[in-house]
Order: sequence, then structure tokens, then C-alpha cells
Amino acid sequence: MNYETYFQNHREQHLEELKELLRIPSISALSEHKSDITQAANWIADKLRQAGMDKVEVHPTTGNPVIYAEHLQAPGCPTVLVYGHYDVQPVDPLHLWETPPFEPTIRDGKLYARGATDDKGQLFLHIKAVEAILKEEQKLPVNIKFCIEGEEEISSPSLPAFLESHAEMLAADAILISDTSLLEPGKPAICTGLRGLCELEISVHTANTDLHSGTFGGGVPNALHALVSLLTSLHDEQGRVAVEGFYEGVHDLTPEMREEFAKQKFNEDKLKTSLGLDSLYGEEGFSFVERTGARPTLELNGVYGGFQGEGSKTVIPKEAHAKITCRLVGQQDPQATLDKVERHLHANIQSGAKITVVKGESARAFTIDPSDPMLQKAADAYERIYGTRALFTQDGGSIPIVETLSRVLSAPAVMMGFGLPDENLHAPNEHFNLENFDKGMLTIVEYLKSL
Amino acid sequence: MNYETYFQNHREQHLEELKELLRIPSISALSEHKSDITQAANWIADKLRQAGMDKVEVHPTTGNPVIYAEHLQAPGCPTVLVYGHYDVQPVDPLHLWETPPFEPTIRDGKLYARGATDDKGQLFLHIKAVEAILKEEQKLPVNIKFCIEGEEEISSPSLPAFLESHAEMLAADAILISDTSLLEPGKPAICTGLRGLCELEISVHTANTDLHSGTFGGGVPNALHALVSLLTSLHDEQGRVAVEGFYEGVHDLTPEMREEFAKQKFNEDKLKTSLGLDSLYGEEGFSFVERTGARPTLELNGVYGGFQGEGSKTVIPKEAHAKITCRLVGQQDPQATLDKVERHLHANIQSGAKITVVKGESARAFTIDPSDPMLQKAADAYERIYGTRALFTQDGGSIPIVETLSRVLSAPAVMMGFGLPDENLHAPNEHFNLENFDKGMLTIVEYLKSL
Repeated sequence: MNYETYFQNHREQHLEELKELLRIPSISALSEHKSDITQAANWIADKLRQAGMDKVEVHPTTGNPVIYAEHLQAPGCPTVLVYGHYDVQPVDPLHLWETPPFEPTIRDGKLYARGATDDKGQLFLHIKAVEAILKEEQKLPVNIKFCIEGEEEISSPSLPAFLESHAEMLAADAILISDTSLLEPGKPAICTGLRGLCELEISVHTANTDLHSGTFGGGVPNALHALVSLLTSLHDEQGRVAVEGFYEGVHDLTPEMREEFAKQKFNEDKLKTSLGLDSLYGEEGFSFVERTGARPTLELNGVYGGFQGEGSKTVIPKEAHAKITCRLVGQQDPQATLDKVERHLHANIQSGAKITVVKGESARAFTIDPSDPMLQKAADAYERIYGTRALFTQDGGSIPIVETLSRVLSAPAVMMGFGLPDENLHAPNEHFNLENFDKGMLTIVEYLKSL
Repeated sequence: MNYETYFQNHREQHLEELKELLRIPSISALSEHKSDITQAANWIADKLRQAGMDKVEVHPTTGNPVIYAEHLQAPGCPTVLVYGHYDVQPVDPLHLWETPPFEPTIRDGKLYARGATDDKGQLFLHIKAVEAILKEEQKLPVNIKFCIEGEEEISSPSLPAFLESHAEMLAADAILISDTSLLEPGKPAICTGLRGLCELEISVHTANTDLHSGTFGGGVPNALHALVSLLTSLHDEQGRVAVEGFYEGVHDLTPEMREEFAKQKFNEDKLKTSLGLDSLYGEEGFSFVERTGARPTLELNGVYGGFQGEGSKTVIPKEAHAKITCRLVGQQDPQATLDKVERHLHANIQSGAKITVVKGESARAFTIDPSDPMLQKAADAYERIYGTRALFTQDGGSIPIVETLSRVLSAPAVMMGFGLPDENLHAPNEHFNLENFDKGMLTIVEYLKSL
């Protein structure tokens, strides 16, 4: 059984199948894509059946459907639950895509499409790894379950209730997730920490109508002035979040933790060059990996108000808007953080302006001890395929459901990522390096056989 | 010759004609409306011919056409040049219009449509006033010329060259313009001052791609953070513009000037109520009429960057944009002001971010001495129709071409406005009060006959 040969022989077919999935614009944030969500869910279910899973079910939820599949013919062996998501991020600004987001294209050994790496491409590796073992050996070395959701990019609102009500069905000894990244090409990493998340939207209102900036300019509040000065007040000059109590629950970095971060030998100059930046920016006194791995952040994801068209329009806008997300670490409480930010906004709004705040989804930060045997075996599998042992890292991103999965199912979450940090997740020209497509399937086979 | 009866008898017909003009979406700022611009110009030319003007010409320019018309059969009498514009402002946000902007509708004695008051409705009064006198008396009491442009809302880029090259054709003893407002219903005003204008667009760029706010958040510059803090730096806590040298050329308010402003008995509480504001906002130490009439301002007309769609998107945007206009007074130099703002922006941009500045159109402030006989006669005409003498006011708005017209043609500019300050110029639900539609035509007839 040479899986390298098997995957080489099936490479074209696998890529064509993955492209089929990537052509489905299953954007969970936009309600007009509801039918694409259904199509993507059914596609995944079909592929799981074709792979040879014994039972495959598409479960409706109050939101998007969850796909469950199982193959439980290895009595006495551990049970692995594979988690992934078939929904994707929105695609704007569309004009910055070199090829359309839902027309998958291979260039220079990379597969370009929305969802290529996050998470359709990575999820697909597990389906094909299981299929390969069943085709080559007619049985699996472990019991396997799949739980694939369609709301990860909108913070998984329906899955927690589904997990609670199906805890027995989903019970497992480890939760296997590929939705993170290698450190850099050829340097695998197993994520042992994820930041939490909380989100809010702000609207600032001034007069009951847009006003002429000549007749009224200088004499009335301008919703954009009020908004930008309010948003500016959220940070201090040192790049710290200036919201009272924001850092409560954030653990100070110990010398040991700083040493662990330093092991990554992260090259900040290389990052600057690849992003075309003169300098990085962030909270003073921390390195890039510390800032993103162990420090919280408050980011403006969108700001808009007034005239955006061609030319100029001499208007004083009556309203202006901002979308904000915070990434959380340690014991920061997402709801309490939202409350603190909201208090800050109300306390700092300019006179003559009113503010409304809508709080969105939230999730706590997650960590796991790297000495867990399920993680050590994952590091072994990487070593055999990549020739180098995986580092245990802390990721700046959030997969809000990981903390819930691990808690509800009382099982360690094994985050074996096969993406790369510069693959434009959530941005134009998202892509997946095919080297990791190939090695990913081999690593998963190795891991399952080692358990 | 009872013009009140004449206009009453023709009222329905006049309103139907004006609605025809208001249905043409002649937005000069948006290039896709080029053919609407042509249609509006031809419509005006046709109406001037029907009114009985001897010669009517549509002059092409490097931009939108200028309509010239003349009726010069009053030898020894003064010549009046009527200036107006047939282009209109953009209409967004469209969803805030109670009836569509280009489907004119009369409600509660007000005609609603984009351009109803600025300036199609006011310009139309002059055409119909001239037509009325010619129909009733077969001759005009003065020589009349019309010069109607289609680029006022984009700061009249082509007209100055047209004026220079046609100065003899356009020569006049007074320039008559209706593109301003009464003080309030029943209280006419003649504008003796207009603020100047200069405009610029800013783009802030950070990384060469949008980035995931999890993976990168807190460790890289965010174009929106850089933009909002830059925009905030343009004002101080007292509402003053914080750009070095911005106030050079601004005259201090003398006690006499403050007394003249006080004569308007402007009711700030009433303004607050009508705009739904808890408080007004502006430079400390000045009243609303002083702030808008005699003080400069820097206003954000549009700000945008990042995700604006439904839901949330955890992105760090690579770029963010702002549209800014300044209103100028006294001897402030528009070009020098743009240079100062640009210097401020470059000096205050956050590290890791780059800025590009594109300067737009500009115009100097304009003033005229209220004792000019052409203005005094205009005040007389208002008094006979409205029963109250017009006040001489300073308007916060800019009609950039007024200063140029007056200078190139060496003639006083008589700004007889018939709009009202709350008619939503440049905003959704622009309208024109029909009381001033009726009285406006009568006032113009009175004025022309008095010269």
C-alpha cells in the first residue's frame, strides 16, 4: 500500500472534485447564498458516501445544515471526529481578484478560489484520506466520525446546540481539525491556542437628514467627524486598546512563553517585504508572534458614511457606520469585553451625535497542553511526511467552535493545519499550495494509522 | 397688466413644464449621465426660444454645454445677464427619498425632486418671468442675456475659459443669479457673500492585500485605523481646524459684523428642532450664522474602507478613503489651503501606512458691497412682493463661478435667492416651496421693470 502512488494516480481527479466544491459560492454571511449553502452541504454528503462512510446524514439546524457521517468498524480502537466547515467568507472587493473567486484556477502550484484553504480545501483532504484507506485496505484503522458545519465564518451560531443535543452520537477520543496553517513552507505546526472573538457594529447619527456642507458646514455636527474621532479614541498612541478594563484576564507573558515564541524564529523583515510594508504596527513592547499569538486586539473591519461615488459631493452626512471585531486571549470574557467597549463608545461620543451599538457573536479563547498524546502523535505524523517535527504554536485567529467542541465532547482538539499564513484567507486571491494538498492527505493517513 | 393673474392662469402649465425638466437626471458628477446633461441643455434652449428670446445658442465646451440667449431690444437701458445651472447633485442615499428623485411630486405645497430648488426650479423662474413680460407687453424693460451652465455642481471647470473667450458677448451691467435662499419663509435675503471652496480626496494604503484579522490582527497596520486617526487630527477639541496656517486670510469678526449677523435674529433652537439635534456643533465662540457665514470649515463628505455588507467580515483592509471639502472666507487662498492640508496629512500619517492626496476644484470666497444700486433695487423689488425688505446676508455655501463671473465681466452679482435653507439641497428629499415659486416670478418681473 503506497499511498504516495495512490494519491499521485488520483491527483487530477481529486483536484477536479475539489474545484467542483469551490465553484459553489457558499457564503454564510450573505443570505442570498442560502441555496448555495444547501448545494455545498449536499455535495459534501455525497462525497462522504462515495468515500465509503457507512452512514451519512444532513441534519437541518435553525441555521445551515450540519453533515454527520460515521464509519465505526474498529472495535477497541479510538474514535476520531473530523470537524470542518463548508461555508466561506464574502469576496469583496471583487475587483482585486486576479481570477474570479468562484472559478478555481491553478497557477504556479497554487489553487486560487474563495475557500481554497479556508476550509473547503483542507476539509477535502480528510474525505480523500479516508477514501484512500478504505479503497486500499477495505477497512479503517480507527473509528471515524465527521461533523461538518456551514456557519463557521459567522461564528457557528447553530452548532453549540447541535453538539449538546447530539453529544452521544458525536462522542470521540479526539477532535481532528484542519483549519490552521503551517508556520511556513515545509515547517509544520500544531496549533495549541486560538484567540477568542467578539464583534460589534456602531452607527452614529446626527441630523435627521443629510445637509449641504456650504449652508451648514461648520455649524452642525457631522456624523463622519463624530465617528472617526470616536474610533480614534479606541486606541492610544502606543497602539494599545484604550478601553477601560479591556486587558482584564490577559495573562502577562512569562520568560518561558517568550522563549517558546522565539523558537519560531519568525522573520519580521520577510513578512514586511511580502506584505509590501515599510514597518509593522502594533502594541509597543511585543514581537509580531507575541502580538498575534498572546495579545488581544481591536480591529476596524469596515467604516463607511457619506458619498463614495465618482467625483465630489458637498454633503454633511447624517449617519456613519463601523464594524469592529476584537480578538481575545487568556481569560478575557467576550460579553464583558463588548460591554466595556460599548461603555467607552457612549462615554466618548461627540456632543450633537447619537450612537447605537449592536453586539454580534462572541467566543472565548482556547488552549490545549502540547503534551497530550493525541497531539504528540500528530507531531510524529508530520515528521514522517514533512521530514521535520511540528512546532506547537498559538494562532492569532479564532475558530470559535473549537473551544465548544472540546468542552462539550470532553475530547482534545488536534489542530493539524495544512494552510500557509500568506494564503489570503478572508481576502482577495485566497489560495491553497498544492504541495500541502499532497502532503496533507499523506499526513492524515499516517496519523490515523498511528492511533 | 396684472402679472399675479397671469402667473395664476399659467400656474398648472408652468409646473408641468418644470416637472419635465426635473425628470431629466442631469447629474454632472457622474459620467454615465452625459446624455441627460445634453437633454437638459436642449430643453432649456427650447424653453428660452419659446419664451421669445431673439437668439438662443447651445455652446459646446470642453465639458458640458453652455446655453447663451439674448434679447437686446432696449437701447439705452441696462443689460442684465441671468446666470443659472441645469446640472444637479447625485442622489444617493436613494433609499432615503420618500418619492424618487427624478419623479417630481407635489406634497403640502412643495415640489419634491433633485434640482427642485438647486437650481432648475430657481432658474426656471427667470425664463418664465421674461416670457410673461414679452407675452403681456411684447417688449422687455431691459436688455436680457442668459448664460446657463451644466457644471456648477462640479465647480464649473469649463465656464471660466468660456467667459474669458466670450466676454464681449456676455457683457452686462449686472449679473442676476437665483441660486440662494430666503432667510426663512416670508423673510427675503440678498446674498452679499459666499464662501470659497477647495476639495481633496485621500487614500491610505497599508499592506499589498487585505489580511485576516485573526492571523494578523494587532501585528500589522490597519488602513482604517490609520485613516480615522489622521482624519481626527484635522480638528482640535474646540472644533477648530488643526491644520497649521489654515486660518491665514480669515478676517476677525468686527463688532459691526457681529451686529449685522445678530440682525438676522437667527433661531438656533428652531434649527436644532427641525434637524432633530440635541445640540449644534462647531468652532467655539461663534454663533451658527457666524460659523457658516464668516468662518471657514473643513468637512468630511465621505469616508469608506473595508467591509460594508451584511453581517461581519474579519478583515484588515489594505486601503481606506476619504473625501474632504473646505469652505473658505475672506482672503484664504484655495490652492495654498490645499497645500497646507496636504502637508498636515503627510506629517501625521501613522507609521506603516502611506497616503495619496488628489486635489480637486477650488474657488475663492466672494463678497459685494450691499450699497450697490443694483442690490438696493433688488431689495425694493422683494419689498413690493414679500411686504418686507430683504436683509443682506452672507451665505455659507459656495457658487464658485460667482466670483469669476463678477471679476471677468466687471459687473455686480445680484444674488436674489428664492429657496429656503431647509429645502434639502444636496440631500434626499430636495424640494422647492411653491409659495416662493409664485412670488419669485413676480419679484423678478418687478426687478427687471425697476431697472
